[in-house]
Amino acid sequence: MNEIDSRKQFINKSVEAKEIYLPHLSADPVIFGFDENELKVLLTKMNYRKQWLLPGGYIKKEEDLDEAVVRILESRTGIKDIYLEEFGVFGRKNRNDFYFEDFEDSLFQKQRFITVGYYALYNSHESNPRADEISETCEWIRLTQLPEIQLAMDHREIIEKALLTLREKISSKPIGYNLLPIKFTLPDLQKLYEVILGKTLNRGNFYRKIQNSGIVKKLKEQRRGGAHKSPDLYSFDYENYTKALQKGLNHW
Amino acid sequence: MNEIDSRKQFINKSVEAKEIYLPHLSADPVIFGFDENELKVLLTKMNYRKQWLLPGGYIKKEEDLDEAVVRILESRTGIKDIYLEEFGVFGRKNRNDFYFEDFEDSLFQKQRFITVGYYALYNSHESNPRADEISETCEWIRLTQLPEIQLAMDHREIIEKALLTLREKISSKPIGYNLLPIKFTLPDLQKLYEVILGKTLNRGNFYRKIQNSGIVKKLKEQRRGGAHKSPDLYSFDYENYTKALQKGLNHW
Repeated sequence: MNEIDSRKQFINKSVEAKEIYLPHLSADPVIFGFDENELKVLLTKMNYRKQWLLPGGYIKKEEDLDEAVVRILESRTGIKDIYLEEFGVFGRKNRNDFYFEDFEDSLFQKQRFITVGYYALYNSHESNPRADEISETCEWIRLTQLPEIQLAMDHREIIEKALLTLREKISSKPIGYNLLPIKFTLPDLQKLYEVILGKTLNRGNFYRKIQNSGIVKKLKEQRRGGAHKSPDLYSFDYENYTKALQKGLNHW
Repeated sequence: MNEIDSRKQFINKSVEAKEIYLPHLSADPVIFGFDENELKVLLTKMNYRKQWLLPGGYIKKEEDLDEAVVRILESRTGIKDIYLEEFGVFGRKNRNDFYFEDFEDSLFQKQRFITVGYYALYNSHESNPRADEISETCEWIRLTQLPEIQLAMDHREIIEKALLTLREKISSKPIGYNLLPIKFTLPDLQKLYEVILGKTLNRGNFYRKIQNSGIVKKLKEQRRGGAHKSPDLYSFDYENYTKALQKGLNHW
């Protein structure tokens, strides 16, 4: 879509938006994907500007906030049935001043927005996101690529806060269910933690902590086929895993 | 203030509010006080209705959200210089339908508000909160009293979520600095944890976890004067405490 058409598209949307949505409020989903031992984040690029954005949107006047973010994610990326957790509110008064700077002040999208950030960790190889009509593309972008790309508004800061929340979370809550296959090895699980934390972990400490937590159980099988010694297979102990989700791993 | 006057006060405020504040957005501070070995929460009661409320307010059009909540807390309670942490957003569409039900729909305060919750843990014996002009009272209410009092809108739910956040927090971050005197005993610290968690803890486990964390150091003094054996005094190890605040107590 050329620039004139994409500008027209925004202006048309603005009229409708004033009827449908609450002013000044938006929601931005930060969906982290885990795939091929890499952490990725789901981003869009709109027809109008060649900058990357979180697939966010506005809240309908007659809609609960929790409903809104689920609808927004699905309508903008095609991804549905995913549990989103709120992690922060971004309310600096100038945060979205520049993105729409060459539009009239009356444009709905140009007003001040305070945005609510939601995050989820997702098994990204199961999904093919699809761009909506206002977007040129919607893709999984590797976290290691983020420093090189242009992100609009404060979306880099929002992604960083989400990642920090995810890192804090794994010190007190288990993760891995739905992200790893039913049977996995401890090196697989360690790799997941390392990718989220962005650092390598000491193997002995990691194994001890995981085993003390009780969230995994060793199966009577090994993984075959590698050049090395066949590693033991594990699966999550569903009962202990659920308990740890509720009570935390390090409760007093 | 009688009911007619308090209604008039709301209507007068409404006109001014439309000029000053963003629509549909509010912030509610949940300030937990620790005092006399009890956990308390700071609540107000407005002139208009005899229900308890968090000391919340609206966001100015030209103000960052973080600035707003600090200003709101000070203007409504007199309490200032306190670090507030966002813990949740409350966005059910009918959440504030009833409080202003006997006013015209055009009243600013009656519109749908999505509210941002902030919490802090505060040494409440150092402060005397004072009510603002729209409030009859502003007081520390003991958490054990909450089941008996009438709370407006979804403020009970907001307080519960804040408390849950505080409880989760102490499994991964140290607390106590600013809440305990410079020299304290391990039973003092244990009491603080027990009051927040709402349950008694095993003494041996608690002492071992605290000592392993490295956040306290034993002094060469005992507390004198009790009928029992004089207990050892401790103080926080500032460096380790700060490190644990940043990295978490249970990092991988």
